[in-house]
Amino acid sequence: MDPLQAHIRQHLETYLEDLKRLLRQPSVAATGEGVEACAALVAELFAQAGAQVEVLRAPGAAPLVVADFPGPGRTLLFYDHYDVQPPDPLEEWVTPPFEPTVRDGKLYARGAADNKGDLVSRLAAVRALVAVRGGLPCRVRFLVEGEEEIGSVHFERYVREHRDHLAADACIWEFGARDMKERLHLSAGVKGICYLELAIEATSRDLHSSLGAIVEGAAMKMVWALASLKDPQTGRVRVPGFYDRVRPPSPQELEAVRRLPFEEEDLKRLYGVERFIAGKTGADAQYDLYFMPTCTVCGLESGYRGPGSKTVLPRRARAKVDFRMVPDQDPEEIARLVQEHFAAQGFPEMQVQLLGGERAYRSPIDHPFVQLAARVAGEATGRQVLLQPTSAGTGPMYPLGTTLGIPIVSLGTSYWDARGHSPNEHIRLSDWEETIGLMARLLERFGEEAW
Amino acid sequence: MDPLQAHIRQHLETYLEDLKRLLRQPSVAATGEGVEACAALVAELFAQAGAQVEVLRAPGAAPLVVADFPGPGRTLLFYDHYDVQPPDPLEEWVTPPFEPTVRDGKLYARGAADNKGDLVSRLAAVRALVAVRGGLPCRVRFLVEGEEEIGSVHFERYVREHRDHLAADACIWEFGARDMKERLHLSAGVKGICYLELAIEATSRDLHSSLGAIVEGAAMKMVWALASLKDPQTGRVRVPGFYDRVRPPSPQELEAVRRLPFEEEDLKRLYGVERFIAGKTGADAQYDLYFMPTCTVCGLESGYRGPGSKTVLPRRARAKVDFRMVPDQDPEEIARLVQEHFAAQGFPEMQVQLLGGERAYRSPIDHPFVQLAARVAGEATGRQVLLQPTSAGTGPMYPLGTTLGIPIVSLGTSYWDARGHSPNEHIRLSDWEETIGLMARLLERFGEEAW
Repeated sequence: MDPLQAHIRQHLETYLEDLKRLLRQPSVAATGEGVEACAALVAELFAQAGAQVEVLRAPGAAPLVVADFPGPGRTLLFYDHYDVQPPDPLEEWVTPPFEPTVRDGKLYARGAADNKGDLVSRLAAVRALVAVRGGLPCRVRFLVEGEEEIGSVHFERYVREHRDHLAADACIWEFGARDMKERLHLSAGVKGICYLELAIEATSRDLHSSLGAIVEGAAMKMVWALASLKDPQTGRVRVPGFYDRVRPPSPQELEAVRRLPFEEEDLKRLYGVERFIAGKTGADAQYDLYFMPTCTVCGLESGYRGPGSKTVLPRRARAKVDFRMVPDQDPEEIARLVQEHFAAQGFPEMQVQLLGGERAYRSPIDHPFVQLAARVAGEATGRQVLLQPTSAGTGPMYPLGTTLGIPIVSLGTSYWDARGHSPNEHIRLSDWEETIGLMARLLERFGEEAW
Repeated sequence: MDPLQAHIRQHLETYLEDLKRLLRQPSVAATGEGVEACAALVAELFAQAGAQVEVLRAPGAAPLVVADFPGPGRTLLFYDHYDVQPPDPLEEWVTPPFEPTVRDGKLYARGAADNKGDLVSRLAAVRALVAVRGGLPCRVRFLVEGEEEIGSVHFERYVREHRDHLAADACIWEFGARDMKERLHLSAGVKGICYLELAIEATSRDLHSSLGAIVEGAAMKMVWALASLKDPQTGRVRVPGFYDRVRPPSPQELEAVRRLPFEEEDLKRLYGVERFIAGKTGADAQYDLYFMPTCTVCGLESGYRGPGSKTVLPRRARAKVDFRMVPDQDPEEIARLVQEHFAAQGFPEMQVQLLGGERAYRSPIDHPFVQLAARVAGEATGRQVLLQPTSAGTGPMYPLGTTLGIPIVSLGTSYWDARGHSPNEHIRLSDWEETIGLMARLLERFGEEAW
């Protein structure tokens, strides 16, 4: 066995103690519980490993931890976050969410997969390299934020204000999973998001539904307005201008997606659907998944929702709608277009509030760093690697990537059943050990290769 | 002062004690709380007043109280109910809902207006007539059910099984209000109702909303399905066959509605709307209110409804929809047509459950009894009387009217701000005294006039 791998195996319990310490510390961004204490603990873990640590602060924001490990030549940046999703429903956890527990080679705790496991695997790789090789092959910088689970509210501001301090040559992003066929997924980008809260008030109060002969209620108005957002046959968003800025995929991106497997029938079984939107199949559905923006009604509420019947003409209706966006769509512009669309459809009274907006980001998939990460991931793990030009999901890559002007690729420790955001979140310890080795190897190769 | 009126004024406190006793007894049909005890108390009040009382029972049903007062000639039937709406939200009551309290000449309690106040005013009229005139001018029968607030579930069965026992020549229905201009409303009919619970399940579980690129969620499907029910421009229901059985109003009904005032701007201010459905005004809007069926979304629920954002593609969506129906529409047929419509619109998976159905009923508005009731109401109160061919609301008139083959008209003790179904339900005691006198006068005239 390679001495580096041997060292990692030998010291796995030590690294695991770091991870368990971090997992025992709640850090729920949505409620603020433990966020300050967790930032302090992250800073302490890095300092103990020999990093120079700075904790950046902005008014009303969770602390941003920046940790630097010295090394020659170029700088590799790791983006991680120390905050986690709320742990509820608590009763569905087999062991308590903030008491990390190993069962059957798996480590259970809130944050194990998203994203404390990643964070500590990367720190462990640094520790192993320093111990075995006597130093790092490049400079390594960690950027660990505390608001990822609530839309990275202050992240862009931090990045812009500290751009010189954060400079790097490339970045490894926070997530990355092994799929049901044990292939390793890397993403060179993310979709953006425009998350809207909609509200409509139709009458001065709830009315008796017998008045429905002459007065229209809020529920029906909301239904008509929402129905107008998307064509049920084609799945196309009907908001004028919505697709105007959609940047078509590059030939390289298109080719990368064509190379990706798409196990259509498996997916349909998993999701419990008989067909995909607009009846699309194969390459067409796959194209939409990676390259097209979406429109999803995430929540809906009006009138009486208890058991049995209540004959009410509801005063108010509310809805939550998200649009996953592709480059170069702008969340604020989309919010405005939606508002204008509702007015044109006869619902000028619809209140549209932008709850969260992030832009999409894609690194050039043929960038030498992206290709290097994919190659090393395959060599270090022996796994088949699927390199996606973008994830279908969202993260704050845009402010970092555009401000620093660097390529970013996502690569991590998770797997298909890790249950991030859900009860019994966990990682497989074998994946975790594998990822530590993979990250150490990537740092070495990053130090060797130029572009 | 007329001796009958004088007697009523003198004994008002005694009658009020009966009403307070009844109001102190909870009788919530939705939960069953106090229903049996209230039926027993109603039977006791009637027996104490000299009636022959029978408490009818059917499996799983609330008791139906039938009380007979002897008298010559024809029989006048009163339909009332002893059950009430749930009292919550309790914190909005100034005094507790089941502790009847008089403030500023008003009697506050759950059921004061709907419909225990009516019930006891009618009993008081009988007591006054017996005391002053030495007997009743006609036979009087009370029919007091205990399930009106949950859709009179077993009422039709009771009526059919006991049709001979319930026989009468005419019926006074449970409600009737003084409007904001202190005019007295009578209704010779009610609309029917078809109340549906809709549910759709789109996927095997809640999914991450990034999958919205290829998988449609339940919320959007529900929205499309509901939007297809009604044309937003015209307000017309788009379910094929929905209007097939709509019976146009008779010339008499049409003329009666033309005579009714329609204070359009006052109503718009009260409801807080700028326009009625389809921009209708005046006689057109009034026609719809009385003669056209409705379609109202009463409740809507899907996905995430808490604060902030959650990016979920919801597995399930539910909705409650009511249709107010006119003669000769059939609730079961409407439910079937709606189900077929959803299937034709591309939502065959929509589950449609009929939570409650009642048919519309209209007595001939020119029937001598209906005309008599309206005339006596005006004479006895000095009020302007508005005789409507039908209420825009619903009640179980159909089974009673068709089974017994009698005219029915609604006339009661309530007023425009009585807050039935709401916190601080109350009646004005002056209205109540007036209604006792009116009912006594009506019984006398009913005994005198033939048709």
